[in-house]
Amino acid sequence: MCRLLFPPQPIRHTAMSVTSHTIVTPETFSFDAPFTLQNGQTLPRFELIVETYGELNADKSNAVLICHALSGTHHAAGRHSADDKYPGWWDNMIGAGKPIDTDKFFVVALNNLGGCAGSTGPLSTNPETGRQYGADFPMMTVSDWVKSQALLADRLGIAQWAAVVGGSLGGMQALQWTMDFPERVRHALVIASAPRLSTQNIAFNDVARQAILTDPDFHEGHYAQHGTKPRRGLRIARMMGHITYLAEHGLGKKFGRTLRDGSLHYHYDVDFEVESYLRYQGDKFADRFDANTYLLMTKALDYFDPAAEYGNDLQAALSRVQADFFVASFSTDWRFPPARSHELVKALVANRKNVQYIEVESVHGHDAFLMEDKPYIEGVRAYMRNIKVGS
Amino acid sequence: MCRLLFPPQPIRHTAMSVTSHTIVTPETFSFDAPFTLQNGQTLPRFELIVETYGELNADKSNAVLICHALSGTHHAAGRHSADDKYPGWWDNMIGAGKPIDTDKFFVVALNNLGGCAGSTGPLSTNPETGRQYGADFPMMTVSDWVKSQALLADRLGIAQWAAVVGGSLGGMQALQWTMDFPERVRHALVIASAPRLSTQNIAFNDVARQAILTDPDFHEGHYAQHGTKPRRGLRIARMMGHITYLAEHGLGKKFGRTLRDGSLHYHYDVDFEVESYLRYQGDKFADRFDANTYLLMTKALDYFDPAAEYGNDLQAALSRVQADFFVASFSTDWRFPPARSHELVKALVANRKNVQYIEVESVHGHDAFLMEDKPYIEGVRAYMRNIKVGS
Repeated sequence: MCRLLFPPQPIRHTAMSVTSHTIVTPETFSFDAPFTLQNGQTLPRFELIVETYGELNADKSNAVLICHALSGTHHAAGRHSADDKYPGWWDNMIGAGKPIDTDKFFVVALNNLGGCAGSTGPLSTNPETGRQYGADFPMMTVSDWVKSQALLADRLGIAQWAAVVGGSLGGMQALQWTMDFPERVRHALVIASAPRLSTQNIAFNDVARQAILTDPDFHEGHYAQHGTKPRRGLRIARMMGHITYLAEHGLGKKFGRTLRDGSLHYHYDVDFEVESYLRYQGDKFADRFDANTYLLMTKALDYFDPAAEYGNDLQAALSRVQADFFVASFSTDWRFPPARSHELVKALVANRKNVQYIEVESVHGHDAFLMEDKPYIEGVRAYMRNIKVGS
Repeated sequence: MCRLLFPPQPIRHTAMSVTSHTIVTPETFSFDAPFTLQNGQTLPRFELIVETYGELNADKSNAVLICHALSGTHHAAGRHSADDKYPGWWDNMIGAGKPIDTDKFFVVALNNLGGCAGSTGPLSTNPETGRQYGADFPMMTVSDWVKSQALLADRLGIAQWAAVVGGSLGGMQALQWTMDFPERVRHALVIASAPRLSTQNIAFNDVARQAILTDPDFHEGHYAQHGTKPRRGLRIARMMGHITYLAEHGLGKKFGRTLRDGSLHYHYDVDFEVESYLRYQGDKFADRFDANTYLLMTKALDYFDPAAEYGNDLQAALSRVQADFFVASFSTDWRFPPARSHELVKALVANRKNVQYIEVESVHGHDAFLMEDKPYIEGVRAYMRNIKVGS
């Protein structure tokens, strides 16, 4: 067990047993020591916005960390108000009696550093200038996030996570945890993820970034000072992203070639339903998301490559991990196809680690990690149920 | 045989036996009768820019029409000047001793109506206003192109094509020819194509269009009048397109995760080689291509769906075709994967048509139709060699 760097901070707002209708309240943790990042830059201080569900047990052995993907937040379960149209982004997974059971576990979800949902990020005020960071906010790596999450664990008095769980970019964080803090993770659940991006993944990310960077409203990332927002770029990035998150099969099944109103119009407005859907998704995202955060999140994805410093030998990179692993992939995920999970599983098995791997038949593509495919949900449930916790 | 609508126009510039270094000269054919389009609009007149290679034989039985894809032109083989860095876009396929052998065939390549390489299109002057058409240029369908190509055939005195050949969108034109003018096509070569776009194809096209349509330099398509050009949008569209034309395998093999100068820079400029490559492709395309043409080409792709008016019964749609078919697909083409060619082959076979189908193992993705995979090149060569022509 590690020595905790800070005295634990009392948690005021945890919801004991969470359902989809439980009102949950985020709380903010401030870290006032300078925080040096992998790229050499230092944040003078930072805050993390956090939601917790369930109750930390006496020996603090039931804590589960949820790591979010590109556009996720700390709001993973429950609702912020009775009027909320939707619950948190992983509400189908986290709650009382759900696969990540809040009657058993104390679940911690945070908005990553560099995010735009309340943690310190490009929208925050730079204490050195008194102005919004904007483009001056430093780039983050997956290791930086894990390091900041470790400080949060210290603050919460959690010396070791029962499990660190994440899908996609979240899965990369779970994996990084097992490498950077082997003794602080008992189980890692790495879902719809990959040990590093493929060339095509990087290529799509770069096109998305270029859409934002070349938007005339971007102003080198200081759009707030210009009273603008690079909505067009964000919208295009999200539309493209959305295609890559969904499987052709699922997209075809949902929309096919259905015309919005039954006939072709020979115009550039919506003809096909799928166009309407994508534009709606793009608009919604452009409304809610920050472009600088989008940029740095995609860069963190591109840069993630734990095997690189081991001569591209993933087995060597994973030789020090102590956690047991649950790895899941989805048949139609062409962003992180099953073959990418196989690489990880192989490297873990070669290291004689305990790995449970499931490959789920799904029509949902990469987004399946957020969906309801039964073998997946039940696989996570069974794995989480078998995790031993104290009292 | 059809009656020819116009007296044949003498061809002045055909290059008799074409090599990659033969200087070829395009010529322009004017059509002065009003041309009514599928969407109901009428072009008062139009021009097609054409290159021809080889010599039309006495009984005019050796003519081959080349149909281009989204960004193709009439310049398919040879060079325009001795200084030309590259020959025409299908020079590996067309020429003396090449699969489409100009010592045997008289090959006709044109820039499609609505194009931006010399045929009447958005860059042309609208005779009704004296100004550039720009966004007022009507949308085209694959049938419209075939109809305009039939007028060109008339003009050239070609009552029947020995073959109509095309890849991707060009393959759709070859297919449409066999349906709209069954008696005027002896052979159709439909390569890396599909009987209609998938939902995902439409989705990618719409994102590309949205990138252009929302570029502030687009000005509702009348950018010429504003002295601008929606370069950003075109660039993004092309970068994204390029990813979908290439296979992950090919992209990975070519670039992998290679860094441009050996280290990560924590900036949004180029880190990875693949980024540099894509941006270069995007810039080059934005320089040479017209945005309105791009828009209408992608719409023609989306709208192509010959089975639609037969209750989605492709077999019924193809019941009247008379041509023999050569169909080719490529293993890593995820834009138009082999399964899409299977649909076509099945429907043709069900109609008891002669079909030769090859499925080529390739690392080149959709772009394979422009590449050198030997089984493909030799397949086309063998098929073309077996086509009987008179004297």
